Amino acid sequence: MTRNGDPLLLTPGPLTTTETVKQAMLHDWGSRDEAFIAMTAEVRDRLRAAAGQGEDFTAVPIQGSGTFAVEAMLGTFLDPDAGVLILVNGAYGRRMIEICRRLGRRAEAYEVAETEVHDPAEVARRLAADPSLAHVVAIQCETTSGILNPVAEIGEAVATAGRRLLIDAMSGFGAIPLGSIPVSYDALAASSNKCIQGVPGLGFVICRTAALQAAKGHAPFLSLDLHDQWRGFEGNGQWRYTPPTQVLAAFRQALREHADEGGVAGRGERYRRNCAVLVEGMKGLGFEPLLPAAVQAPIIVTFRTPDLSGFSFDTLYEGMKDRGFVIYPGKITEAETFRIGCIGDLDESDMRAAVAAAAAALADMGVDLRGAAA
Amino acid sequence: MTRNGDPLLLTPGPLTTTETVKQAMLHDWGSRDEAFIAMTAEVRDRLRAAAGQGEDFTAVPIQGSGTFAVEAMLGTFLDPDAGVLILVNGAYGRRMIEICRRLGRRAEAYEVAETEVHDPAEVARRLAADPSLAHVVAIQCETTSGILNPVAEIGEAVATAGRRLLIDAMSGFGAIPLGSIPVSYDALAASSNKCIQGVPGLGFVICRTAALQAAKGHAPFLSLDLHDQWRGFEGNGQWRYTPPTQVLAAFRQALREHADEGGVAGRGERYRRNCAVLVEGMKGLGFEPLLPAAVQAPIIVTFRTPDLSGFSFDTLYEGMKDRGFVIYPGKITEAETFRIGCIGDLDESDMRAAVAAAAAALADMGVDLRGAAA
Repeated sequence: MTRNGDPLLLTPGPLTTTETVKQAMLHDWGSRDEAFIAMTAEVRDRLRAAAGQGEDFTAVPIQGSGTFAVEAMLGTFLDPDAGVLILVNGAYGRRMIEICRRLGRRAEAYEVAETEVHDPAEVARRLAADPSLAHVVAIQCETTSGILNPVAEIGEAVATAGRRLLIDAMSGFGAIPLGSIPVSYDALAASSNKCIQGVPGLGFVICRTAALQAAKGHAPFLSLDLHDQWRGFEGNGQWRYTPPTQVLAAFRQALREHADEGGVAGRGERYRRNCAVLVEGMKGLGFEPLLPAAVQAPIIVTFRTPDLSGFSFDTLYEGMKDRGFVIYPGKITEAETFRIGCIGDLDESDMRAAVAAAAAALADMGVDLRGAAA
Repeated sequence: MTRNGDPLLLTPGPLTTTETVKQAMLHDWGSRDEAFIAMTAEVRDRLRAAAGQGEDFTAVPIQGSGTFAVEAMLGTFLDPDAGVLILVNGAYGRRMIEICRRLGRRAEAYEVAETEVHDPAEVARRLAADPSLAHVVAIQCETTSGILNPVAEIGEAVATAGRRLLIDAMSGFGAIPLGSIPVSYDALAASSNKCIQGVPGLGFVICRTAALQAAKGHAPFLSLDLHDQWRGFEGNGQWRYTPPTQVLAAFRQALREHADEGGVAGRGERYRRNCAVLVEGMKGLGFEPLLPAAVQAPIIVTFRTPDLSGFSFDTLYEGMKDRGFVIYPGKITEAETFRIGCIGDLDESDMRAAVAAAAAALADMGVDLRGAAA
């Protein structure tokens, strides 16, 4: 169960990409030549379209990983003289608190347990209590647990309070709509190697152009200044600083394939099927998902590590790796867990094969979890 | 004169890479899996070896472009409470002044004309006059003009004054030694898509481990904090944040090919021949290099744009592009110029063909520069 000699990556990204996405990298481009300028424009247009936004929004790609894009978004949009309320229920929310500390931005954390979502009423209460909180930052899907946060309802509370919303949409962008209702936000950040299924090396921020213009001069750094990056694109279509040309070419191909699959709806439907097959299969083996189904995003599923003599996560990992599947350690602070992703160039048959590989690894260990759970 | 359907890139990078470097990207890797951890370790070891450094140095790759690596180096190593002397003779030196302004680091510019090099005696004088200048930053090869700065002699002045040297070795690392004498520095920054001939998307800093340890807590940002990045590598061999997996795979292949070519000496020798063929050929057509040969680095050559009726740079650019060569606009502030690079997977026959393409483009314009120069 490998492709091109590689195991399938059941991880939150980098993930398994299509052969056509990888083959798009077999060229060299001059980064200031017209062919590459056209490629950049197509990527920016397709990103805005994938977000369902019109002419009042703009897409700004930025070199680096998703964290680079999040730091760029915070450093560019946060007002140096105001505060920000950050909604934390996992490692990525805590990382944003640390970014604000480094950048000298005053951040208040509204933190709940890693298995719980935030209460929009509490967001409203905190905003009412502190008028200096100009922005709220929410995470759509926290891959620490795989939880889906209620961004739409949080967005309503933020808009009602007359504040501005920034979204870390890293793990879900391209597969999960922000909510069942339209969400008003100034900016969202994501990266190339998640649900769009590109290779890693590129982040992007999709934002309201007026808000970006108003953020001029905020950034306490140069490379990650999204306002200046955007000015460069708008000026001559070029990147300020050397772009990852092959990564962008792969990303353009990935965006085309995303549209061909039916965009957010089509991509999301496949991931939901992958997730359902995975959860059902793993429960059948006796594994227990950490989260209730109602808040489980179809991106990555956290399972409790069985507390059973003879079971070892490392052995499960190696047993599945030997059969062509790479899974992921857990990141939850309060429980022993591991994670299996549903995203990338994978379908239901791959997920069934992954469950079969887990079953075989359990058999190798001589462990039957169904007996333990009974 | 194309390879794989692509024109040859006579630019300062992204540049023309080998087919084997590009083909190294045709896989997907889990970024926390042992195969990728081994790849990261090999790249770090080979970088330190390419710098000719021993166990007291360490190599820290960082996501993004070369400017990201320079900003990471400045933000990590510069003492927030001290000043820095930056040697400026082009756009990249000026960019470092702007980075320091953004990061709140006190920078003094020692600026000379873009066609001149810095005087080590003046560096010594300035350091003596201001004991608060803890660091000096020098650029080995300023691609604004293509000039080779006397980093070794500057390094002697810095060491004599008891200060610390940081080097932007972006354009020359892997092909030009820092000097004919050993240079003592705390850190140098460069990137994947220059003389090592990888694809873009990755920078790196090679630094004295003790200096990096002493820089803990300096960085005014998170993503570009080289100390934390290094701690991640040393801790479990992994990247803190998602690495550009395919770009790193290409870079490992490029480092292996660099070693196979004879390392810095072999790579530099080919580039020197490329440069000599280019300059001789272009002079034969009547083009005039901006710089005297004594300070011309064999990386990129700036030519004066002929001030002759009938000559147009855009027509030269298109005429050479049609024949399979991408050249580069000038960046000098005080003169009309254009640039042609000598680096990448190119040899003397490619450079002769490039000169022939320039000759043909001139013929199309009906322009004979040799008459004008006479």
